[in-house]
Amino acid sequence: MRAAFQGVHGAYSEVAARKMLGPSVHTMPVDSFEDVFSAVTRGKADRGIIPIENSLSGSIHQNYDLLLANNLHIVGEHYLLVEHVLMCHPRSSSTRLGKVLSHPQALAQCAHFLRKNRQLHPEPFFDTAGAAKFIMETESLDCGAIASGYAARLYGLTVLRRNIEDQPNNFTRFLMISRTAWRARHASRTKSSICFRPANNRPGILFSILGVFALRDIDLLKIESRPDRESSFEYQFYIDFAGDPSHHAVANALEHLREMTREYRLLGSYPAAQLK
Amino acid sequence: MRAAFQGVHGAYSEVAARKMLGPSVHTMPVDSFEDVFSAVTRGKADRGIIPIENSLSGSIHQNYDLLLANNLHIVGEHYLLVEHVLMCHPRSSSTRLGKVLSHPQALAQCAHFLRKNRQLHPEPFFDTAGAAKFIMETESLDCGAIASGYAARLYGLTVLRRNIEDQPNNFTRFLMISRTAWRARHASRTKSSICFRPANNRPGILFSILGVFALRDIDLLKIESRPDRESSFEYQFYIDFAGDPSHHAVANALEHLREMTREYRLLGSYPAAQLK
Repeated sequence: MRAAFQGVHGAYSEVAARKMLGPSVHTMPVDSFEDVFSAVTRGKADRGIIPIENSLSGSIHQNYDLLLANNLHIVGEHYLLVEHVLMCHPRSSSTRLGKVLSHPQALAQCAHFLRKNRQLHPEPFFDTAGAAKFIMETESLDCGAIASGYAARLYGLTVLRRNIEDQPNNFTRFLMISRTAWRARHASRTKSSICFRPANNRPGILFSILGVFALRDIDLLKIESRPDRESSFEYQFYIDFAGDPSHHAVANALEHLREMTREYRLLGSYPAAQLK
Repeated sequence: MRAAFQGVHGAYSEVAARKMLGPSVHTMPVDSFEDVFSAVTRGKADRGIIPIENSLSGSIHQNYDLLLANNLHIVGEHYLLVEHVLMCHPRSSSTRLGKVLSHPQALAQCAHFLRKNRQLHPEPFFDTAGAAKFIMETESLDCGAIASGYAARLYGLTVLRRNIEDQPNNFTRFLMISRTAWRARHASRTKSSICFRPANNRPGILFSILGVFALRDIDLLKIESRPDRESSFEYQFYIDFAGDPSHHAVANALEHLREMTREYRLLGSYPAAQLK
């Protein structure tokens, strides 16, 4: 099983791929999210792993756009707790570090730690795992990195301190995408993701649309509107709900939904993961 | 009028501050979003300018958390089109550039341009405007920067190329925050932002909650659920709707809403901006 992800080996996306597909998965790093989709579409990878939302920085609309632009299916999800680790070259130690490399967002997420350790000058890097790799490759003894514990293990770096993030509940939800749809067998809890635009813009249209689910006792798990710059009165909606079209009520709800929406798309049905 | 924003002079947040408060506003750069809130709370600034959502990267939940943790009011909004500009030192030129500095996210947003101009090696920097400032201060002739056109003007850099972003409809919505609430006078289009948790988690509770608005013909402008890691069955909701509590129907809807929600909070009412 080959799984494409954006970044370099040791990235949080690769950690998610291993959690979802097991440690024997053959992970394939690519440059961009577009490249993840094209690797799966062209059969170079069996699965793609993409982040879709983060508890601090929100939904990654760019990946929703790619889900819509490509003809792939969501077949799984995983909630990954983002735990930042401070690491250094095995021949170095914490007292020798003068700077620490990482993605600016990761550095910002460790602001309190860096404020208390003023000798560690933060330096921006393209990605967290790339910073770990750079330290190992260049044998930098005065540089630390902030990345995943997995990146430290992979590149043979020494873990100096775990969980240096300010907010303990920073998690990212990842989706697994595939050329073929997931088939409901005997999964106990399933989930479906849809995207649509309402058929018109009268006040209350969203209320009517949600009635399709509420009047069939289908539980909503996510709802998000996204304004459309092309036309300021148009919105795109993302909804996740419990169940999949093998359930009679869900199949009927989806039929009903088509009457009230435009550009309706079922992005996939898959086993629901727990927010741990 | 003093307006605090996160970043350095020339940041997109400062561009938004000038659009909202006029070019004579006294802008105050601070290190973090927390610092924006504390500058306003402690009276060091009259207003704070914070990004709240981006059309590609979604809602900035961190700033919703800060709105909830602080006792400030949203008093305005602005949609800013993010137009990335390639710039260099006035004594340099495009043929002399070997690298280009910017925030990794801005570099990623100009990936197509950078792929077509392979001589420009991208290098990560803390922020877009900081890259522009660095080039001017260090008189780097072999380095370009990707930042706002305003940053180029401010630091006296030469604009080499405008609109180098891949996606033309990349916009950020900014909020203006203040110690005192905005008062409805004769604004034609107003908007209110609320945050709450449903009173219980029965399927259909959200449908009932939206009925509070739909049955009063109040138009919803944004709806977003945010899962809560502490309890995987709990969601926080953000809703923006048309109108403000000076309208009778809105005041009644907000009273009605309290019965069906917990941790309800009106984050502010303010004149609605157009998505241009």
